[in-house]
Amino acid sequence: MTEDPSPALQVALAYYQAWTSKDIAGAMRHLADDVVCDAPAGRIEGVPAYRQFLGPFAQMLIGTELLAAFGDQTRAVLVYDTRTPPVASAPGAECLTVRDGRIVYNRFIFDRLPFEAARRAAD
Amino acid sequence: MTEDPSPALQVALAYYQAWTSKDIAGAMRHLADDVVCDAPAGRIEGVPAYRQFLGPFAQMLIGTELLAAFGDQTRAVLVYDTRTPPVASAPGAECLTVRDGRIVYNRFIFDRLPFEAARRAAD
Repeated sequence: MTEDPSPALQVALAYYQAWTSKDIAGAMRHLADDVVCDAPAGRIEGVPAYRQFLGPFAQMLIGTELLAAFGDQTRAVLVYDTRTPPVASAPGAECLTVRDGRIVYNRFIFDRLPFEAARRAAD
Repeated sequence: MTEDPSPALQVALAYYQAWTSKDIAGAMRHLADDVVCDAPAGRIEGVPAYRQFLGPFAQMLIGTELLAAFGDQTRAVLVYDTRTPPVASAPGAECLTVRDGRIVYNRFIFDRLPFEAARRAAD
């Protein structure tokens, strides 16, 4: 591509590269202070809550594979697969809104069921 | 936009408009005969199995909202929210590969947990 990539996608990819490398502090630097994330378990507001949501999962990661990444001026979508000890393949999608170079909103989609099943099996 | 939209996105949106309008037959016409879909419950192969997967869910739909749609020459991503009787808000993401004007592969992501919880509550 000769065109500049989407500015929202640039931010989204920097965030993704950080959290999938377990650099949670680095990932958090791409979030606005008042970030809102609608995740499967409910709404998350603010960076400390976001870190509590994503950090433990990132620490479990064995591997990730980016399947698709698109964006425009203000929004980006990432689709990826993840491998963790409890779940060999857990794809996720993030639909991010970026303002002034920071992520202000994220709709985070993944299937909680295999994680719930693994938790129950471990109990 | 003055540029032609993504040809893969055009196919993906036609498929999406059909299935979210409960026109399952119309949606199936956008699938290759040997379509493969990796859905949360496992791999689906071929149009009849795809119809069995998507048809019952489409019939339950009360409403949908397209949140993001991006694509390039061969791939498209759709992110949307759905409302059904068991689950008021169930977002989904589809990451589709298109070849010769038909969908040949789809990675379909949504959270099964609220549907499972509704099913258990109904039992």
